[in-house]
Amino acid sequence: MNDLDIIQSLKKHTYIALSAHISPDGDAIGACTALAMALVKMNKHPVILMDEYPEKYNFLPGREYIFSTYPDNVPLELFVALDCGDLQRLGKYVDYFEKALLTINIDHHISNPNYGDYNYVDSKASSTCEIIYKIIKNSEIDIDDEIAASLYTGIAFDTGGFKHSSTTFLTHQIISDLMKYKIDFTGIMDKLFYSRTFESAKLLGLALNKMELHYNKQLCICDLSKQEMEEVGASVNDMEGIIASMKNIEGVLVAILIYEKNSNEIKVSFRSSGDKDVCRIAQIFQGGGHKKAAGCTLYTDLKNAKIKVLDIVQKELF
Amino acid sequence: MNDLDIIQSLKKHTYIALSAHISPDGDAIGACTALAMALVKMNKHPVILMDEYPEKYNFLPGREYIFSTYPDNVPLELFVALDCGDLQRLGKYVDYFEKALLTINIDHHISNPNYGDYNYVDSKASSTCEIIYKIIKNSEIDIDDEIAASLYTGIAFDTGGFKHSSTTFLTHQIISDLMKYKIDFTGIMDKLFYSRTFESAKLLGLALNKMELHYNKQLCICDLSKQEMEEVGASVNDMEGIIASMKNIEGVLVAILIYEKNSNEIKVSFRSSGDKDVCRIAQIFQGGGHKKAAGCTLYTDLKNAKIKVLDIVQKELF
Repeated sequence: MNDLDIIQSLKKHTYIALSAHISPDGDAIGACTALAMALVKMNKHPVILMDEYPEKYNFLPGREYIFSTYPDNVPLELFVALDCGDLQRLGKYVDYFEKALLTINIDHHISNPNYGDYNYVDSKASSTCEIIYKIIKNSEIDIDDEIAASLYTGIAFDTGGFKHSSTTFLTHQIISDLMKYKIDFTGIMDKLFYSRTFESAKLLGLALNKMELHYNKQLCICDLSKQEMEEVGASVNDMEGIIASMKNIEGVLVAILIYEKNSNEIKVSFRSSGDKDVCRIAQIFQGGGHKKAAGCTLYTDLKNAKIKVLDIVQKELF
Repeated sequence: MNDLDIIQSLKKHTYIALSAHISPDGDAIGACTALAMALVKMNKHPVILMDEYPEKYNFLPGREYIFSTYPDNVPLELFVALDCGDLQRLGKYVDYFEKALLTINIDHHISNPNYGDYNYVDSKASSTCEIIYKIIKNSEIDIDDEIAASLYTGIAFDTGGFKHSSTTFLTHQIISDLMKYKIDFTGIMDKLFYSRTFESAKLLGLALNKMELHYNKQLCICDLSKQEMEEVGASVNDMEGIIASMKNIEGVLVAILIYEKNSNEIKVSFRSSGDKDVCRIAQIFQGGGHKKAAGCTLYTDLKNAKIKVLDIVQKELF
C-alpha cells in the first residue's frame, strides 16, 4: 500500500482512532499528533488513544487529541496503528483495533507482520514520522508549524539526533523541508537528548563515579543498589543515558549496568560497540535483545549478580 | 566575492597555503582538509599550516597535507585563511599570510573585518565548511567520500550536531547531499560529541556528584579543586561538557563551574539558558563573554572564590 492508497482510505472515513506502541517514545507520539492535526485539517475527527507518555513531550502540539479511551457515543470507523511493530504492542487498545470497521498499520519496524487490513511498512524509513511526512506531503493538506514540530520531533528522536545508521539522505532532505517552518528545533533537541532532572543527573554522577574498567579496559561495568539510587532522590526510571555514557568511553567495547530494581530482582543492561555479541550473554541469563544491546534479570542480590555476570562475560567475550 | 571568483583565484595559482584559527576545532580542520583535497584534484599543491589539533580529529582524511611550517623551497603564491575571525587568530602563521602574493579570507564569523585581499564572509552560513561545500560544488571538481567526510565533520561540529540556532534548511540540504557519499557519520558524531576518556567521564561524575542547586533551584553551581581532579586522573583539559550538563538540568537558568587551575588561580565558567545576563557577572570580575556564556579568573582560593561569585550572582541575578 502506498501514500496515495492511505490518503484515499483516510478520506473515506470521518471517525478515526490513532494509537501507537505502549510506552510511547518521540516517534510514536510525534506520528500520532502530526497525523491527528493533518486529519483535523481534512475535517476528520481523530482521537489519539494513549494511556500515558513521558512528561518531556509536554511541549508537543496536538496533545489535545490524546485521550485514554475512545468516546462511547462516537462511531469508530477506522483505526490507524502507528509505529507499532506488532499488534500486542498496542496494549489495551487492541480491543478497539479489533472492533474498528477498517484498520491501517503504518510502521517502519522490519519485523512488522502486517497485522492491519491495510499495511504501509517501510523498514528503510528512519522513523514512522518520516512515513507520515510523505503521506501528508502527498495529500492536499499543507504542513504547518505545528505538524512540522511533531514530525521533526519524531524523526530527531528515532535517529538519535540524526546519528543512528537509520539516518539517510532522505531523512535530512525531509528535515530540510521541515526547517522552513517556524519550529524551535534547538529546544526540541534539548528536550529530547540533553535535558535531565536534577535527580537523574545526580544518578548519572553516581554511576560514573562507581564505574570500573576490566579486561584490558575494554569492559566498563557499574552496579547501583536501590539504596544508592534513593539517596540521590532517583529511581529506576532515571537510568536513561547512563549505559550510553559508559559505552562511549574511549576503548570500551562492552558496557554493563547492573541495578537493583527490587530486593533480589537485579536488572542487567548490556551495550556493545564492537564485535562482542552481548545478546548471547543476556540469553544465558534468560534475557534477550540484539548483538549490540541486550538485557536480562537475575533473581539474587546485587553483589552476587555482578560476580555471576562478570564471570560469564569473561568466559564468553574476553 | 562569490564562489566563482574564489574558484577563479584558486585556479590561477599552484602553491597554496591554507590555515585556520589557533586551537582549531572541527570546522576549522574540516574546512582545511576538504579544501586541500579538492585543490589536489585541481592539480594544485596545498599545504595546511597547523601547529597542533585535538587527537579526536585523527580520523579525518586529508591530514597528510597538514604541516607545522611551510616548506622553504616552495613558493607561496596564495594564502587562504579559513574559519578565522580576525588576522591575529592565525597565530604564528600571520607571517606567511603577510608574505603571500595574494590572500583570501573565507569565514562565517559576523565580526570578520575582511582582512584578506579577497574576502568571502557569509555570516548566515552555519560553518565555514558550508561555504567550502558551495565553492567545491560550483567548481569542476567532484566531491568524493573523503571530502564529504571532512565537510560533514565541520558542519556537524559547528552546529552542535544540527542543534544550534545557526542550523538552517540549507545546512540539512547540504548534509543530505553529503550523505550520498560513503561516510561513517555515526562514527563522526560519536567522536565529536559523545566519546570521552575514562578520566574525563570520572571528572563529569565527580562534578555531577558535587553540584548544588541554589536560589529556588534556578542556579546550579559546582566547584572542583585541583586535588579532586587529580584524584580521578583528570586535569583542566577534561572539563568539556560539564557545565553544559549542569545547564541542561530542568529548571536551571544559570550554571556556574568553579575550578582551581593553579593555587590561587580560580577559573569560573558561566552559562545561562534564559534571560539572565552572565556576561555582566564575569565583567565584574574582569572577565567577559556573551550574555549566555561567559568566564573570568579570580586570584584567590577556591572556597573564597565560590563565596564571592555566589554573593555577586545573588545580588545581580536572583
